[in-house]
Amino acid sequence: MMIIMKASATPQQVENVIEHVKAAGLAVHLSQGVEATIIGAIGETHDIPLDRFEGLDGVEAVQRITPPYKLASRQFHPEDSVFSLDGFRVGGNEIVIIAGPCAVESRTQIVETAQAVKEAGGNALRGGVFKPRTSPYSFQGLGEEGLEYLVEAREETGLPVVAEIMSQVQLDMMVRYVDVLQVGARNMQNFNLLRAIGETRTSVLLKRGLSATIEELLMSAEYILAGGNQRVMLCERGIRTFETATRNTTDINAVPVLKNLTHLPVILDPSHSTGHADYVTAVARAAIAAGADGLLVEVHPDPSRAVSDGKQSLRPEKFAEMVKQVKAIAATMGRRVAPAVKPVAVGWQ
Amino acid sequence: MMIIMKASATPQQVENVIEHVKAAGLAVHLSQGVEATIIGAIGETHDIPLDRFEGLDGVEAVQRITPPYKLASRQFHPEDSVFSLDGFRVGGNEIVIIAGPCAVESRTQIVETAQAVKEAGGNALRGGVFKPRTSPYSFQGLGEEGLEYLVEAREETGLPVVAEIMSQVQLDMMVRYVDVLQVGARNMQNFNLLRAIGETRTSVLLKRGLSATIEELLMSAEYILAGGNQRVMLCERGIRTFETATRNTTDINAVPVLKNLTHLPVILDPSHSTGHADYVTAVARAAIAAGADGLLVEVHPDPSRAVSDGKQSLRPEKFAEMVKQVKAIAATMGRRVAPAVKPVAVGWQ
Amino acid sequence: MMIIMKASATPQQVENVIEHVKAAGLAVHLSQGVEATIIGAIGETHDIPLDRFEGLDGVEAVQRITPPYKLASRQFHPEDSVFSLDGFRVGGNEIVIIAGPCAVESRTQIVETAQAVKEAGGNALRGGVFKPRTSPYSFQGLGEEGLEYLVEAREETGLPVVAEIMSQVQLDMMVRYVDVLQVGARNMQNFNLLRAIGETRTSVLLKRGLSATIEELLMSAEYILAGGNQRVMLCERGIRTFETATRNTTDINAVPVLKNLTHLPVILDPSHSTGHADYVTAVARAAIAAGADGLLVEVHPDPSRAVSDGKQSLRPEKFAEMVKQVKAIAATMGRRVAPAVKPVAVGWQ
Amino acid sequence: MMIIMKASATPQQVENVIEHVKAAGLAVHLSQGVEATIIGAIGETHDIPLDRFEGLDGVEAVQRITPPYKLASRQFHPEDSVFSLDGFRVGGNEIVIIAGPCAVESRTQIVETAQAVKEAGGNALRGGVFKPRTSPYSFQGLGEEGLEYLVEAREETGLPVVAEIMSQVQLDMMVRYVDVLQVGARNMQNFNLLRAIGETRTSVLLKRGLSATIEELLMSAEYILAGGNQRVMLCERGIRTFETATRNTTDINAVPVLKNLTHLPVILDPSHSTGHADYVTAVARAAIAAGADGLLVEVHPDPSRAVSDGKQSLRPEKFAEMVKQVKAIAATMGRRVAPAVKPVAVGWQ
Repeated sequence: MMIIMKASATPQQVENVIEHVKAAGLAVHLSQGVEATIIGAIGETHDIPLDRFEGLDGVEAVQRITPPYKLASRQFHPEDSVFSLDGFRVGGNEIVIIAGPCAVESRTQIVETAQAVKEAGGNALRGGVFKPRTSPYSFQGLGEEGLEYLVEAREETGLPVVAEIMSQVQLDMMVRYVDVLQVGARNMQNFNLLRAIGETRTSVLLKRGLSATIEELLMSAEYILAGGNQRVMLCERGIRTFETATRNTTDINAVPVLKNLTHLPVILDPSHSTGHADYVTAVARAAIAAGADGLLVEVHPDPSRAVSDGKQSLRPEKFAEMVKQVKAIAATMGRRVAPAVKPVAVGWQ
Repeated sequence: MMIIMKASATPQQVENVIEHVKAAGLAVHLSQGVEATIIGAIGETHDIPLDRFEGLDGVEAVQRITPPYKLASRQFHPEDSVFSLDGFRVGGNEIVIIAGPCAVESRTQIVETAQAVKEAGGNALRGGVFKPRTSPYSFQGLGEEGLEYLVEAREETGLPVVAEIMSQVQLDMMVRYVDVLQVGARNMQNFNLLRAIGETRTSVLLKRGLSATIEELLMSAEYILAGGNQRVMLCERGIRTFETATRNTTDINAVPVLKNLTHLPVILDPSHSTGHADYVTAVARAAIAAGADGLLVEVHPDPSRAVSDGKQSLRPEKFAEMVKQVKAIAATMGRRVAPAVKPVAVGWQ
Repeated sequence: MMIIMKASATPQQVENVIEHVKAAGLAVHLSQGVEATIIGAIGETHDIPLDRFEGLDGVEAVQRITPPYKLASRQFHPEDSVFSLDGFRVGGNEIVIIAGPCAVESRTQIVETAQAVKEAGGNALRGGVFKPRTSPYSFQGLGEEGLEYLVEAREETGLPVVAEIMSQVQLDMMVRYVDVLQVGARNMQNFNLLRAIGETRTSVLLKRGLSATIEELLMSAEYILAGGNQRVMLCERGIRTFETATRNTTDINAVPVLKNLTHLPVILDPSHSTGHADYVTAVARAAIAAGADGLLVEVHPDPSRAVSDGKQSLRPEKFAEMVKQVKAIAATMGRRVAPAVKPVAVGWQ
Repeated sequence: MMIIMKASATPQQVENVIEHVKAAGLAVHLSQGVEATIIGAIGETHDIPLDRFEGLDGVEAVQRITPPYKLASRQFHPEDSVFSLDGFRVGGNEIVIIAGPCAVESRTQIVETAQAVKEAGGNALRGGVFKPRTSPYSFQGLGEEGLEYLVEAREETGLPVVAEIMSQVQLDMMVRYVDVLQVGARNMQNFNLLRAIGETRTSVLLKRGLSATIEELLMSAEYILAGGNQRVMLCERGIRTFETATRNTTDINAVPVLKNLTHLPVILDPSHSTGHADYVTAVARAAIAAGADGLLVEVHPDPSRAVSDGKQSLRPEKFAEMVKQVKAIAATMGRRVAPAVKPVAVGWQ
């Protein structure tokens, strides 16, 4: 951590900052230049917030040299994190395709979709049962009833299931049903929720917030990792910019940047990041080409009857075509889409 | 609500959309132009999500004419909402100044600050006890101990107290202590929390999310209002943009826009919206000049020792100067800063 | 074009708007709903600005149904535009790779780079001779001397050359030297320059502005097309967002969106859109996977000695590896990188 | 300037960077820490681009300590720049109000507006004669004919005139007519134009680009100052963000930030920064309260007949009310709106 002093800083102010650095348990490396005095604060700085020094008199700016996250950092964990989801592995050479409707609407709808997803080559089933809706008047999800339908769909197909959690209050119930807890964009900095999830050992799909930086996404992952839960996948789902031609702007740069900074698997959600079914396949291909470890895609047997997000949902046949194209691209990179799930287990755990 | 059909839409697709509109309990007004067919959906549309129609075949775009919020709208409630906080009123001709440290750090710190705030002419005391920190390693607040200190500060000064709530789990405890529940930017779309707060009758200070539109802020207020809690203040606290010279970009436009769209009081937080103590006073003046109903300002007796946000905290004497300048501007607009709080009540409720 | 009247609009105001619509040579289609009166303005609306009606009394909003560009629109020109650059074609089944240094620095540097580009499989040579630099104190390019070196590099390798034009004053000179005029992001809305270029028949590479919408990019292309110059390639080069981990945010969505909206070829510049050599190859692959018609890549024989943009320039061997990977992805999509340029012509025109 | 080396940098790489620093005429201050080696580059660094060092092997990041602009910096010119425009002064204690229509449409329109502006207390007249329009099909301005009308309006009222220049080709003509050259947002980084203007001695109103940072605005001012033209006013006119409720987002923070960083006068344009006549007055008041030295406001005698920007133009009576309110706020800050212009001079120069 470097603390850059103002040109006008007095020796007393410099001395005062040095004392604060030492009080934080850090060693000091003083560099008195002509333009500026720089105080290097050396040691375990990732757990020290910048604002501990920014408010001190005479300080111009404080800057990190090493990242503020540690458990999520590739620096301290150079190999890719790989963890098994029932039937396939996430984060290694294989690419995972998670698909399903925005919301679980009925038993029939979700089972039918699950079968279509499986047939097309998908590896896991998504479906929301608690829906974060902008309006209090919109459909808010089926709740526990929806979880039961998801489990039925899993029993029918063998596909592990992913559903979004919106509050720590739902945690105990959800871990009993789902294979992967999805943390949505709007909850990426719901720190109470992250901390609670960190204490479980359920896999997590952590989506990037609408205006979260890549560093903030990693800091949120750090909350979960710090609790001891290592099973975290990151998900780029588009950021909010000035462009209105698409629902969000897919930050494709985030894929290689994250692969460089962290050992955690990186998934991309082309449905939310574009908001239009017409653009999903192109961006899905791009994600894999950029090095993503998987995709999260909205699929609905009849998008025109979807209670939400119909506009961005693929029909099953279009999804199957997408999987085919993605496989071809993965192959050029020496990767493959994870094979069909194992036969349905009796006594799923 | 207008549903604009694609130029290529077939009569069957138009017919199908019309049926969906009717099924939603809305009347249909068909307008077949040369460039496009437009289907007007007439009735109570604020509780119908756009995506109910967007996914239908042949639909180009769906657009609202009336806003998706109703309780928050000035259209249905033309007069300003005014509600009393103990000792002064919010939302009328008077301007409210809420001030205090980012975090409650100790009994002494918060009582001392409260006295300085009162002396300088502030009307309410803020202080965080649960802190939403980007890093899991940062100070996360004193919790209930901090709430007790806040109450002591209130007893000493008579200032009502404002503290941030981060989870619905904290709600029962917090309503026993605080006068105003602050919902932070990162929780503006924590819909479970909003819904829970809507069922209380405690006043709420709802902060705009980092990348939330003005409409989304009003939709979040609608969640609280829909529960029956009418005591909602909105707070502009800066949005995230490409500019890095300041911590956030104060969206000063939001003040007159919100005053136009809603009857709810509008507060501005120049501390977070600038991130630098040097710029707080100028932006506080601007907020009042733009028509804001109040300010939320970080004040710390010794910013250089603040555990967080020291950089953007005003010293008490600088805060007193700010209040003076703000009063002068308010006077030119026929408004005044609410007078000093009433004498400390025995048996505060 | 739809003109949505305010709920409070009087019959006189509606009548007045109708007269304005007729005066603009458009037919009127009136739709009087319960929520709102909508006036459809029918006819050739692409050349009528919205603000012609927005300021009229009683008008709530004006909205286009058909796009404001016509020549650039795929609606009126469903087939891809394909045009020949010497030695290969742009915009068809073949993918073009334009590469070279940020700035032409010397005869040796540019000829050496051209040879490396050709050898690696690139199709055209880029090199700036007028550099738009943020600072007046930075190197501003070699000017005409640089153009001469570019021509020498073309003579040595047969690669057509691309260079940026910054002002209409440079136009006469530049068309004598270069094969493709590049219009940089900062000049995307330099309308005088666009108009001047529209009157030439030289090919153009039009880069998207830092905060330009996709529609604005197409409107700028329309300026050139309206002058009669049909040889326009569009270039996504990253947009400015809040994310600071990369120089810009590659808007990969723009690729399929543009391919849908326009018949013009779409190129992507992963060097500027990421700003880091480490991320260029991943994003180059993504661009082709998303359907881009080509790439614009910074290559320098010794990035550490580049006078500008060294950080984002690929070394020749890394570039060769990128071309190889891009070819593999193109192949999965039934496309190919344009073959090596034709033998150097005597008497190049 | 600090050059932060990667943790993995070799001694040879450090040595190589040091040589490059020396070759740039700078002194070296080496600081070898545990986390990182930092090379301080000391001397006249404002004219050295960061990318001179960023591309060197082993370099993690390069950071400025002193700003890259010098002539525009308050550091080297602590007093406010004040310069006379005919009849009043810009940049001192007085506030300047420049008003007029978006475009000069006719002799009558501009003379009538000028009289209204003068009567309401405005100090200068704006009016576009070359209009940067997004569409090639929109009205592009009256050109030199418009300049003649502007001069007539000046002769009638004594108000100095401001008009936008779009290309260096127009420079010779424009300096013969106007008192202030306006450089629009889209040309803020048209460096050829800036350089050409720097060689005149005509006053300049330099508008911030839609997505330009404050530092980039100052760098563009530096281009003009470096040519010897000291008469530069800066203009905040709203930046592009995700918010769509207003045309742009007024960056009110920019006012105190600019006043801190530079000695140049700072003007705010509430017409473009909001895009709605209803919000102009509130934001005009905010600008003055924040410390701006003036306003640029669109006024039209009949906004509903304006050829452009009618939606954001004030009627004369609303403008007069705005001036009144602005004066009251200025008074609380010990400032005043510059008094009426001097009597019309015979032989205006």
